[in-house]
Amino acid sequence: MNISSPPPERLVHVPLGERAYDILIGPGLIGRAGGEITARLKGRRAAIVTDAHVAPIYLEALMDSLQTDGIEAVSLTLPAGEKTKSLEHLATVTDMVLSARIERNDAVIALGGGVIGDLAGFAAGIVRRGVRFVQIPTSLLAQVDSSVGGKTGINTRHGKNLLGVFHQPDLVLADTSALDTLSEREFRAGYAEVAKYGLIDKPDFFSWLEKNWREVFAGGAARAEAIAVSCQAKSDVVVEDERETGRRALLNLGHTFGHALEAATEYDSRRLVHGEGVAIGMVLAHQFSARLNLASPDEAQRVEAHLKTVGLPTSMNEIPGALPPTEKLLEAIAQDKKVKSGKLTFILTHGIGQAFVADDVPSSEVLGFLEEKRPK
Amino acid sequence: MNISSPPPERLVHVPLGERAYDILIGPGLIGRAGGEITARLKGRRAAIVTDAHVAPIYLEALMDSLQTDGIEAVSLTLPAGEKTKSLEHLATVTDMVLSARIERNDAVIALGGGVIGDLAGFAAGIVRRGVRFVQIPTSLLAQVDSSVGGKTGINTRHGKNLLGVFHQPDLVLADTSALDTLSEREFRAGYAEVAKYGLIDKPDFFSWLEKNWREVFAGGAARAEAIAVSCQAKSDVVVEDERETGRRALLNLGHTFGHALEAATEYDSRRLVHGEGVAIGMVLAHQFSARLNLASPDEAQRVEAHLKTVGLPTSMNEIPGALPPTEKLLEAIAQDKKVKSGKLTFILTHGIGQAFVADDVPSSEVLGFLEEKRPK
Repeated sequence: MNISSPPPERLVHVPLGERAYDILIGPGLIGRAGGEITARLKGRRAAIVTDAHVAPIYLEALMDSLQTDGIEAVSLTLPAGEKTKSLEHLATVTDMVLSARIERNDAVIALGGGVIGDLAGFAAGIVRRGVRFVQIPTSLLAQVDSSVGGKTGINTRHGKNLLGVFHQPDLVLADTSALDTLSEREFRAGYAEVAKYGLIDKPDFFSWLEKNWREVFAGGAARAEAIAVSCQAKSDVVVEDERETGRRALLNLGHTFGHALEAATEYDSRRLVHGEGVAIGMVLAHQFSARLNLASPDEAQRVEAHLKTVGLPTSMNEIPGALPPTEKLLEAIAQDKKVKSGKLTFILTHGIGQAFVADDVPSSEVLGFLEEKRPK
Repeated sequence: MNISSPPPERLVHVPLGERAYDILIGPGLIGRAGGEITARLKGRRAAIVTDAHVAPIYLEALMDSLQTDGIEAVSLTLPAGEKTKSLEHLATVTDMVLSARIERNDAVIALGGGVIGDLAGFAAGIVRRGVRFVQIPTSLLAQVDSSVGGKTGINTRHGKNLLGVFHQPDLVLADTSALDTLSEREFRAGYAEVAKYGLIDKPDFFSWLEKNWREVFAGGAARAEAIAVSCQAKSDVVVEDERETGRRALLNLGHTFGHALEAATEYDSRRLVHGEGVAIGMVLAHQFSARLNLASPDEAQRVEAHLKTVGLPTSMNEIPGALPPTEKLLEAIAQDKKVKSGKLTFILTHGIGQAFVADDVPSSEVLGFLEEKRPK
């Protein structure tokens, strides 16, 4: 028994029956991934999928750890960025996984951010109709969002995440030390999703963030705490509604507007990254709710103030470059997959921590609101 | 209420909880598909996937029926044949489904044999992480095999069905009149799977087939009966083991050898079609079981005799053209996805109706057996 390795700081168990799994949250997890994996998975082969940003920093440590624990691993390093979530790269990944003779009890390991997790998870979900999947998210966004819930996917010319499967991971290793190498901008973008959990149904957590956000950014116990609360919050929703037929839609708070803005900026990360789109989207969702007399304008202002304080964009005016006409923005919203029989579905709110699903929002209201809020 | 349409001759309900669905078996179902679909699905859009053999015969009738019942449908006709189960065609299908703005409650409809069902089902399983799926199998093989169980998939250069998902249909319409346009050879190939259900665990059904096979081939009540018993048999196994972790492997009786022979003949349907591979494979499985002293050689002879009587091939000698070296056949077996940690898994038998999963078969035994049975 190896008594020298410290216990992980936090563990969130996602109780999905036979698809239940653990999320370990703490520093140094990449360096002991092998032991954590062999303790839980039967197979002794692994195919690692990573990207050109992450590989130089963490791939060697991960492969060393796997080798030490007797796991035979191969790796594939893909270009970093949203464009990698394509059918072409999915074909490359599945071919590599099959070449490595990964069987059902072996694992595909995603080492990277959300793009790598979504792509590798999709591959793990379809090779042999499902092999084991281990997530090692290296961005804050991936640790608090895509590491829980089993959504995988790629983009198509029709939109984002339009092809994918639900495939739960068997283990998530959220190495908090990996976040030290993120840029400020990346960390902030992930923080938008952390704040989202407070805005959905945890007003006390949002208040805590208002007071403690500096410590979360600095690292240490507050960071691990914020990640654990976020994973637990997402887990609670996912367990209740694994296939997104109801309550899980709440997790899309800020995302309907956000996805439309990402599409409008052609997924150009120089202009807007996902978390920034979500930040603007959450402010818009609160403002739109106020406009519809569902919530007080004060709540929208409080959300805007906090996100602005941490350095996130909070309005469309802050997006560099021109946006397409308002009708085009509405079209992007309508093509978003949260559409039912042509009606627009939005996550709206009665105030901080009181989000709800509204599935019959008139598009004329949306159009008028966007017209008012967009850069003139 | 439309009282003029006759009730379906048979209904098999597959009780998979929230994924439960009905299989209707009877003549003329394609012509009233619209009514059956609107009675069960909420969406009013459909994307039909079919092939160049089936489209000229049934597509118009299907589209008319959908239109009559208010379903807006588009169709995509692909080349017929196993080669269509490719990643390239999957891309074409998903693009067409997304262009048609199929949402989660709308349907992808597979009109065709197993190839179309597997491909369209895979697309239905991954577009928006799963949209509704209706199967209209037009071959006997598809009606008794792929219409039950939710397996979908495509082939890769590494082998058959190596990419796919489990995605249950929401409705299966097994139109028995569609089988009248099958060639004798195609019908026989499907019959191999019908016989398989007897061989797995229904010795009485196998005896019934020995007596009544001519009526099954002729059509009418015996045919519907054989299809219904087959669908019920497969449903019983699938319900017990939806994700193929145990008992469901029994359905692979004859398939490990069969798949290897299909690979060895490069999926060239002029040399061997799937059902013929399964027929030879089932005979081999019984002979191999006898060789391992697990079953009496008389049982193997009885299986061989019946399959020969209906006109199916029962030995490797009947496959036109040269087969690769025995080592290559073994390799094809080892790459088959029913491999666990490098050991060979076979479905063997103690006799007719007494199949079981053997997951530790020494490859040397297989090699010796194949060497003996292969054409000299």
